[in-house]
Amino acid sequence: MGGSTFGRIFTVSTWGESHGPALGAVVDGCPAGLSLSEEDIQVFLDRRRPGKSRFSTARNEEDKVQILSGVFEGKTTGTPVSLMILNKDHRSADYGNIAYTYRPGHADFCYDQKYGFRDYRGGGRSSARETAARVAAGAIAAKLLKETGVSFMTYVRSIGPVSTNAFDPDEISRNPLCMPDAAAAEEASRFLEKCIKDQESAGGVIECRISGVPAGLGDPVFGKLDAVLSQAVMSVGAVKAVEIGDGIKVTAYTGSDSNDGFTTDLSGRIIKTSNHAGGILGGISDGSDIILRAHIKPTPSISKPQDTVTRDKERVSIEIHGRHDPVVVPRAVVVVEAMCALTLADALLTNITARLDYIKKIYG
Amino acid sequence: MGGSTFGRIFTVSTWGESHGPALGAVVDGCPAGLSLSEEDIQVFLDRRRPGKSRFSTARNEEDKVQILSGVFEGKTTGTPVSLMILNKDHRSADYGNIAYTYRPGHADFCYDQKYGFRDYRGGGRSSARETAARVAAGAIAAKLLKETGVSFMTYVRSIGPVSTNAFDPDEISRNPLCMPDAAAAEEASRFLEKCIKDQESAGGVIECRISGVPAGLGDPVFGKLDAVLSQAVMSVGAVKAVEIGDGIKVTAYTGSDSNDGFTTDLSGRIIKTSNHAGGILGGISDGSDIILRAHIKPTPSISKPQDTVTRDKERVSIEIHGRHDPVVVPRAVVVVEAMCALTLADALLTNITARLDYIKKIYG
Amino acid sequence: MGGSTFGRIFTVSTWGESHGPALGAVVDGCPAGLSLSEEDIQVFLDRRRPGKSRFSTARNEEDKVQILSGVFEGKTTGTPVSLMILNKDHRSADYGNIAYTYRPGHADFCYDQKYGFRDYRGGGRSSARETAARVAAGAIAAKLLKETGVSFMTYVRSIGPVSTNAFDPDEISRNPLCMPDAAAAEEASRFLEKCIKDQESAGGVIECRISGVPAGLGDPVFGKLDAVLSQAVMSVGAVKAVEIGDGIKVTAYTGSDSNDGFTTDLSGRIIKTSNHAGGILGGISDGSDIILRAHIKPTPSISKPQDTVTRDKERVSIEIHGRHDPVVVPRAVVVVEAMCALTLADALLTNITARLDYIKKIYG
Amino acid sequence: MGGSTFGRIFTVSTWGESHGPALGAVVDGCPAGLSLSEEDIQVFLDRRRPGKSRFSTARNEEDKVQILSGVFEGKTTGTPVSLMILNKDHRSADYGNIAYTYRPGHADFCYDQKYGFRDYRGGGRSSARETAARVAAGAIAAKLLKETGVSFMTYVRSIGPVSTNAFDPDEISRNPLCMPDAAAAEEASRFLEKCIKDQESAGGVIECRISGVPAGLGDPVFGKLDAVLSQAVMSVGAVKAVEIGDGIKVTAYTGSDSNDGFTTDLSGRIIKTSNHAGGILGGISDGSDIILRAHIKPTPSISKPQDTVTRDKERVSIEIHGRHDPVVVPRAVVVVEAMCALTLADALLTNITARLDYIKKIYG
Repeated sequence: MGGSTFGRIFTVSTWGESHGPALGAVVDGCPAGLSLSEEDIQVFLDRRRPGKSRFSTARNEEDKVQILSGVFEGKTTGTPVSLMILNKDHRSADYGNIAYTYRPGHADFCYDQKYGFRDYRGGGRSSARETAARVAAGAIAAKLLKETGVSFMTYVRSIGPVSTNAFDPDEISRNPLCMPDAAAAEEASRFLEKCIKDQESAGGVIECRISGVPAGLGDPVFGKLDAVLSQAVMSVGAVKAVEIGDGIKVTAYTGSDSNDGFTTDLSGRIIKTSNHAGGILGGISDGSDIILRAHIKPTPSISKPQDTVTRDKERVSIEIHGRHDPVVVPRAVVVVEAMCALTLADALLTNITARLDYIKKIYG
Repeated sequence: MGGSTFGRIFTVSTWGESHGPALGAVVDGCPAGLSLSEEDIQVFLDRRRPGKSRFSTARNEEDKVQILSGVFEGKTTGTPVSLMILNKDHRSADYGNIAYTYRPGHADFCYDQKYGFRDYRGGGRSSARETAARVAAGAIAAKLLKETGVSFMTYVRSIGPVSTNAFDPDEISRNPLCMPDAAAAEEASRFLEKCIKDQESAGGVIECRISGVPAGLGDPVFGKLDAVLSQAVMSVGAVKAVEIGDGIKVTAYTGSDSNDGFTTDLSGRIIKTSNHAGGILGGISDGSDIILRAHIKPTPSISKPQDTVTRDKERVSIEIHGRHDPVVVPRAVVVVEAMCALTLADALLTNITARLDYIKKIYG
Repeated sequence: MGGSTFGRIFTVSTWGESHGPALGAVVDGCPAGLSLSEEDIQVFLDRRRPGKSRFSTARNEEDKVQILSGVFEGKTTGTPVSLMILNKDHRSADYGNIAYTYRPGHADFCYDQKYGFRDYRGGGRSSARETAARVAAGAIAAKLLKETGVSFMTYVRSIGPVSTNAFDPDEISRNPLCMPDAAAAEEASRFLEKCIKDQESAGGVIECRISGVPAGLGDPVFGKLDAVLSQAVMSVGAVKAVEIGDGIKVTAYTGSDSNDGFTTDLSGRIIKTSNHAGGILGGISDGSDIILRAHIKPTPSISKPQDTVTRDKERVSIEIHGRHDPVVVPRAVVVVEAMCALTLADALLTNITARLDYIKKIYG
Repeated sequence: MGGSTFGRIFTVSTWGESHGPALGAVVDGCPAGLSLSEEDIQVFLDRRRPGKSRFSTARNEEDKVQILSGVFEGKTTGTPVSLMILNKDHRSADYGNIAYTYRPGHADFCYDQKYGFRDYRGGGRSSARETAARVAAGAIAAKLLKETGVSFMTYVRSIGPVSTNAFDPDEISRNPLCMPDAAAAEEASRFLEKCIKDQESAGGVIECRISGVPAGLGDPVFGKLDAVLSQAVMSVGAVKAVEIGDGIKVTAYTGSDSNDGFTTDLSGRIIKTSNHAGGILGGISDGSDIILRAHIKPTPSISKPQDTVTRDKERVSIEIHGRHDPVVVPRAVVVVEAMCALTLADALLTNITARLDYIKKIYG
């Protein structure tokens, strides 16, 4: 399976470069009968769109999605859903000067090593722009999951040194930094102002909380739900660490601190008494909220001079001007959510093949 | 592809339960012509074996591997290599009392939810014993990688609150905790003594450093090397976070701190001037050492009483006695290394199909 | 992996319905450095185009392909190549009357059973129009194969009861029926005239001969080259049988008639003395020409009245008018060739991972 | 995915060589809750066992299967089912003389070309003995299918020039040639006697009829049910052609002869009025019996002298003595059935993910 395809049953394949004519995604294995419109997808894409705040690039992509196949009379048909987004605003001249210079923190050198040459315009395939296609596909996955009661809340936990202390879900969509804490968002804004002044950039942490996930999703032993979520989230450019539940903190816990007890709720359902595990045990969802965090490095494109070399091994200093966000974290919120949705949708479908009694329910 | 298979070209499928007659792995896609003996694999398995220190289970498994296919006259033939390890010492009576009680921190509840019932003997498929099969397969991957100059150094960075401060590679194999710092190992031992006395357990951090990796491995965009490594490592039971390079620390860096510059070395080869990225940029290896860390939760099996429920929703208190390590981290060192080796071997093979000039070198 | 994806390393995913806005293919895993233009692909598509003879539909699709990604400065970059063909000429009104009636010999009923409903316009996803996307992708595979000396000759062996007796390769492109025998083509034309008059349709046999294939392609035991070729060719709508080499005739042979001996040629190379096997032994190419035949049923759309039922189980008589070929065999020639090329390209790439000495040649 | 793995959800991986210590299969993705014993599998293996008639090899393999994992208290657990068959009776000395000589009709030359060398003992991985592992896995698939009402009838349609004319299902298990026609079996026996006397071998045709298949199985466009069945059946050594339904005969039909009409039966269910299509339309099962035929070449091992070359290009004459069937067709009956069962089981599971209403039935 090509490196640009993800999933086993509900699969997505993306294609496209930053400055090519278009980019897109093909979703195969989406069940028939799901209501789906371009508007459903556009809502997701708009969350990723730049230009919403002064901390994101001025490149004005409309990122208008078109559904080219797989939907008939407002419903998915079970056949591949092809999504396309035209690249309208790409001033290639902007990037000409870095055609043969290896930008620090970028994949330029690696692409040349792997493929022998590369599409250098705007980062080509390694551009963050590729994630637009994932977001479009993720919107379909999220719509499917919603039908079975699964929902997502994704937000920024920190930007550079500024962490959230409060948690107000309503606040997330109120500030351009997607933080659930107005005061922290204010402080982070000031920090980003300073970054811009210093010709620098910042990273941060995104947290995704997934509710309503039925127990049982995930396939031992390599297809564990947390394993596939990690692949999904780490495949987003600039992510350098992934945590599930209490994550790195658990290494300092004792066993009894780390373990979540079981009890029954008022309705007699078995539930956990805490959720240090982040909703996954032994690689299988346990019915609690799934919680994960993605740690994102600072945007590598900075206008501060940096030492590097050209393809021809000439040592040079590079200053990267042009349209670059000092921080990509807020725009990456929906990308992380999309990747989690794609993972969950696939696990949801795969899981119904795991029991003979399920199969008899369909064919019986 | 079943959840028990990993890889695209160099694939491994594992099978087996803790208390079944045997467990094993099938490695498909291993190139023909690799020298391979049972001894090559046994060396890896012995690193995982319990009973080496007082902090690991007294269960005395020899874990003797047999090669059942795919090797002829001391060389791999290119056909599937089947590996089997007999389960000799399993006293099922030990586990009878927990057949229908959900152990906190374990997958018992999740397996019942997913499959309707489970093999409760020793954790069945969710037992850490399953990793023996991965280690056996990983030994083959490591042998293949060695042929192209790739090597591994894996060790324990911390146990509970005790972190290493020094780094002496020779020390790793000298202490039973696999720490590169004798003093830290001493302190960690004392901490583990206390855990045992307290009927508790501990977690820790494993670091893996991979040298000699050629630039160019990894497939954009979902098959990125760091993404697949994350899946590989997170699929090891008890791992709750994975970091690449500077990992979570990068979120507090500025762009210029995070970026690694490029320069040329004395031989004229392009190299990086630092390695915050941990050897991977844009999902493709950059020729520097690959560095990753796995954060492991405390062993969930503790003898301290814990509140839980039975399958039939009866609330009970459980004390888990029997053969359980207060810490699995040292034994997991070789498991993490094996998963990284499996990932790299697959990426190495996949990469030679990425360029027409490579293909012409073979068929020309 | 979704049902719309084919291949392991060199993969193709197709999307699109007969009467949607467009259809297309995404080719992932094509090696970097291959010269590729839209013209290279157009040549293949033009071979499939209708309207070349009076025996093919008057629907006038230009079938103009666009490359949307994966090619830069005239060469493949190693990233997904996205191909799109707009659907220009679709008069949906033509098909309205069959929206809820199950056409005999078509997949209408099966799609409704599988998915609950279907895009009935022009057959939707089950339309032969989908093969345009395969042909576009196959053109890339064929271009890649040409670089290593692999070439194809594909032609019509029979139409209805009319078989070719002569074999003149130059004749294949001279007659609209792609037959290597002018007299047979003449006779087949007369037969098709009669079919039209009788409101009937015809089937036929396509043969594909692949030269220059290096020995060693194909992966035991399920990924055998003949097995994958069979899947590839049988996945073309209307194909009801696939033969390799002497095919069905071998069942009446004796062992010594069926076996091909080995000898050496003047240059000392080992060759076979005959080719009953059709170039594949034990699922692996043997260096001789690969020969296969696809047996294609008559076009199911006929204007002669047929008994059938509607979705609502009403018994009706149906006459299918509109633009339908009395025979699809000549247009399917390039489709069969494309599927063989996709199979071979994938086998060629996979094979270079099968030997340690190959791998050392790249990384050494 | 390695060449030794088949299937998407219900997957099988086989391993093992003719003269290694054992061979086996790992079945992953079998739903939990299926009753399964070694006896269920043994019944299938016994159908393949040699030595039942004088026309099959005297090699006396017991082919006793062991279940090593994935079954607990008589039911599948949803985790991999590992099956092993020890190789007991292999007299390697028998094969020493052909270690470096390329047997006509065998894969010896191709394996050497692909892998650089080969396990020459008894054909190694290319031995028909490998199919024992498939048969064992197929027995599980067949058991699963039986739970939803799918059943198989597989038999020999012809041996050499001798075809069946009558069809008595009860006769199939009565004669050692598995023919549904006692007179034809008698005649075929006489033909085989002559083959033996002539130091020759014979091929034949196997037909498989699958009843009770629900409409809807198979995934457009590459995962079509007939396409995957073709791969499955063609992957059995010695198969040179596969037909679905009326197969090659349809090329001479007219459209109205080839098409099957639709009507309703007494219970109001939509059915076809004929079954030329062999139960599959547009790659999706239509609810009629699935019918396919495999055409098998004569056993390539014959004692008649044949011209060939050695690895070192010496021209030699070879006479293959030892334990070889003059015809493998009757023993291949259960192999073809097993491959069909594996294909259907996978399609059955995959299909329940194709509709949102199915998914809601499970999670609702």
